[in-house]
Amino acid sequence: MFIHQINDSLALKFPSINDAADLYELVDTDRRILSQWLPWTEQMMSVQDETAFLDYGIKQMAERKFWFTLIMVDGEVAGMIDVHSIDEEYHRGEIGYWLSSRFQGQGAVTESLAAVEEIAFNELGIHRLELLAMATNTKSRAVAERRFFHQDAVLTDYLVNNGEYVDAVLYSKIAPA
Amino acid sequence: MFIHQINDSLALKFPSINDAADLYELVDTDRRILSQWLPWTEQMMSVQDETAFLDYGIKQMAERKFWFTLIMVDGEVAGMIDVHSIDEEYHRGEIGYWLSSRFQGQGAVTESLAAVEEIAFNELGIHRLELLAMATNTKSRAVAERRFFHQDAVLTDYLVNNGEYVDAVLYSKIAPA
Amino acid sequence: MFIHQINDSLALKFPSINDAADLYELVDTDRRILSQWLPWTEQMMSVQDETAFLDYGIKQMAERKFWFTLIMVDGEVAGMIDVHSIDEEYHRGEIGYWLSSRFQGQGAVTESLAAVEEIAFNELGIHRLELLAMATNTKSRAVAERRFFHQDAVLTDYLVNNGEYVDAVLYSKIAPA
Amino acid sequence: MFIHQINDSLALKFPSINDAADLYELVDTDRRILSQWLPWTEQMMSVQDETAFLDYGIKQMAERKFWFTLIMVDGEVAGMIDVHSIDEEYHRGEIGYWLSSRFQGQGAVTESLAAVEEIAFNELGIHRLELLAMATNTKSRAVAERRFFHQDAVLTDYLVNNGEYVDAVLYSKIAPA
Amino acid sequence: MFIHQINDSLALKFPSINDAADLYELVDTDRRILSQWLPWTEQMMSVQDETAFLDYGIKQMAERKFWFTLIMVDGEVAGMIDVHSIDEEYHRGEIGYWLSSRFQGQGAVTESLAAVEEIAFNELGIHRLELLAMATNTKSRAVAERRFFHQDAVLTDYLVNNGEYVDAVLYSKIAPA
Amino acid sequence: MFIHQINDSLALKFPSINDAADLYELVDTDRRILSQWLPWTEQMMSVQDETAFLDYGIKQMAERKFWFTLIMVDGEVAGMIDVHSIDEEYHRGEIGYWLSSRFQGQGAVTESLAAVEEIAFNELGIHRLELLAMATNTKSRAVAERRFFHQDAVLTDYLVNNGEYVDAVLYSKIAPA
Repeated sequence: MFIHQINDSLALKFPSINDAADLYELVDTDRRILSQWLPWTEQMMSVQDETAFLDYGIKQMAERKFWFTLIMVDGEVAGMIDVHSIDEEYHRGEIGYWLSSRFQGQGAVTESLAAVEEIAFNELGIHRLELLAMATNTKSRAVAERRFFHQDAVLTDYLVNNGEYVDAVLYSKIAPA
Repeated sequence: MFIHQINDSLALKFPSINDAADLYELVDTDRRILSQWLPWTEQMMSVQDETAFLDYGIKQMAERKFWFTLIMVDGEVAGMIDVHSIDEEYHRGEIGYWLSSRFQGQGAVTESLAAVEEIAFNELGIHRLELLAMATNTKSRAVAERRFFHQDAVLTDYLVNNGEYVDAVLYSKIAPA
Repeated sequence: MFIHQINDSLALKFPSINDAADLYELVDTDRRILSQWLPWTEQMMSVQDETAFLDYGIKQMAERKFWFTLIMVDGEVAGMIDVHSIDEEYHRGEIGYWLSSRFQGQGAVTESLAAVEEIAFNELGIHRLELLAMATNTKSRAVAERRFFHQDAVLTDYLVNNGEYVDAVLYSKIAPA
Repeated sequence: MFIHQINDSLALKFPSINDAADLYELVDTDRRILSQWLPWTEQMMSVQDETAFLDYGIKQMAERKFWFTLIMVDGEVAGMIDVHSIDEEYHRGEIGYWLSSRFQGQGAVTESLAAVEEIAFNELGIHRLELLAMATNTKSRAVAERRFFHQDAVLTDYLVNNGEYVDAVLYSKIAPA
Repeated sequence: MFIHQINDSLALKFPSINDAADLYELVDTDRRILSQWLPWTEQMMSVQDETAFLDYGIKQMAERKFWFTLIMVDGEVAGMIDVHSIDEEYHRGEIGYWLSSRFQGQGAVTESLAAVEEIAFNELGIHRLELLAMATNTKSRAVAERRFFHQDAVLTDYLVNNGEYVDAVLYSKIAPA
Repeated sequence: MFIHQINDSLALKFPSINDAADLYELVDTDRRILSQWLPWTEQMMSVQDETAFLDYGIKQMAERKFWFTLIMVDGEVAGMIDVHSIDEEYHRGEIGYWLSSRFQGQGAVTESLAAVEEIAFNELGIHRLELLAMATNTKSRAVAERRFFHQDAVLTDYLVNNGEYVDAVLYSKIAPA
């Protein structure tokens, strides 16, 4: 088990297909809440689906097109945080995350994001780190703001949610000089 | 020669590798001006490079990941206009273009853009059409504004130009209902 | 819509997967007649099949292994004409075509063939253009003869039609010097 | 060494990359004569080229797109005979061959062709076996005629030889009922 | 039919997908006996499966990653013998074989193995030829011993048979100097 | 940095292409010693080669065909340890390792091996873990013996070292029940 320790109770864990059952249980428990913001929950209907996602994600990570990790709270799988849409030419990447409702309210996402920012800037070579939230997702926007991401724009009809175009808010943070 | 006629003097032409020599001559003549905004001009150093680009672009177009066409003024090749970064899931795409200095000042880009908007919305299934210009590229920004694209944001350090991070302005237009 | 205009009522149109519904309707209406000469009609049983064919054909065309276009009469899709079995080493290619019964009797195929000959010799680099018809397909043979293709041979058992070997007539035309 | 024995002195041998040196020596000795009819001799300039050809041919044979064998006279490699351009849909294939000048005049090609005809019709599933010779290649045409192939046509400008278009004669033989 | 003759009644035959029916009948007849030692028999449930295996094996053979042949007794297909796990860097390969019960007791495997040893050392470039048998497979071990293979080791839990780990005996023979 | 902590001074680190410079320096310093047992050192002639190896290894690891990690002593890169030749059907894998001379003599390899055994048996699903050492490599054999691997056999001419065949000793350990 390869671990990036953040503090006594919080850590990031390198993903393995062995994590599929734990992750699937979290998704399945919070399915209704997660599906509000995360369209992929509809395709995640079994441990096999989760295994296939982990397998694909790990291969993409080996290609350096994607980076992702598990959020661990007191040794338990609590959620995921990632850098996707990595652009090697312009050194950009975009943050994504979700946390099980059971582990919310303790700052786990905010602190994990702080750790991932450092990894993105120092190890992944990212210069401009973006974060895109649905305009109505106040929790996600609060995380971006707590981490002092800059709100660049509200992007009209940028995403599709439950079959309807919805606005997204684009945040960004530039690597420290 | 497959043509989309815009008006008496202006047309769009479906690209062919036979167009390489004409296109290369345009690029080579305007190399200094084009290289200010278009980083790819450095890699375009021979008719063979242009042929390779056309070959690649035509194959990407057949995969519906890219769409591009030649701007023809009075039967002569004058430039190119394209829709790139096509996102099939969220129905987004991004406009790109360049025009030889010899054909500038007659509205060729603005009128070509009007035609491409229609093709993008009606034939390519685009809902949100974006246009990204370097913040200092006033000509390109003027085109976006003449076509009533909405300025969404100034994106800090979004691009790299001549080895330095530069800001970009993001414009967008939503498909008419 | 990219068009090669032949005369006031006749044009060739660059194919798009958006043409699938129009093409399928033509094939389905004339299914019994077309299936006499064109074995592929048995596999063309839905708009999805036609879309898959167009998608495949457009990709082959981008590879320059195939060239095809729609025959348009007064703005309506009327049939198709193509150059297949393109041999880049020996500069040979073979004509194929079909026309909906509704548009027959007006010379549309003969005039389209004249236009395609010119494209094949001047743009596709073909030196020897061939046309192969089942020996009993008098209409197709008449087109070849009206366009002054030379009858090279009757080829015994060259094709399979409805499970039986049938003879084919090979015609050819050499590029003008 | 896998062998198909034809008569006491003549056999066909399944090709192996170990045969490259023997084959290359034959080609190199007869280079001037062979190059009159066989354009590939120009690319066959070393044992490595011959090895690469054998490697490629053996892989194509495993895909059943090609079939080839060595002609052995009294245990020595004397030439090659093949069935290429195999069309699985219409059950057609085309004969090719060459024989070192040292082994000519003893009927080796004619008898090898008789054996390959049988293999083509019985094991490869060929119905129409074709043989294409340059119109001026009287030796090759004599072989086709001795084996009672039917002369279907003289095909104008069908091949390119030493940079010039040349006519080809098409022969064929239908599988016995 | 390409043949490597061993003696008057015994020969090796280059495999073809046309051999699928004969091979499948042998496997199906001896299924109970073969399945004791050969786990693949469970996946070999139709002539189509055998065709797929032959097709795959012939392609692997063309890549020189595998070598296999049919054992023929008096012109009838009797079994198979192969060299698998070919290691091009260290010049190692591993013998595999099976023979229909109907043809056992006449030394066919032992004599075929003698012929394959020669091919492996002289034509396939093998230096160390291995043979691995389940520890309880006395017949297979007797063949190895009759051909003077050296018993290197008993390997604990090296294989899985009917869902249980079983020991294997590793034999080897070094190419004569 | 994802870490598997073994004790206060020893850890395993998930590999990244960012580790190439540190690893290359270790290899280059000990080149003469390492090349005695590790043939790959000859191909490792620059930081670029090391980057290419890491890139390839990380991709193979994502495919679960290979598993490898860096040995860290007091926060410094000291060597590597891996499980290669992973056989998913029979649940076997083979240990490989090397340690910079500067970090030898403190039991780092033996303790790292203990940790990797646990990962192999519990996370990688290995049942039979093998370790192969050149017969003359007494240091490597001592590690195997300190970790109570069973010596299965001396395998004649199993490897090639400096152009000569050399014997290898095969050790194995079975997963605890």
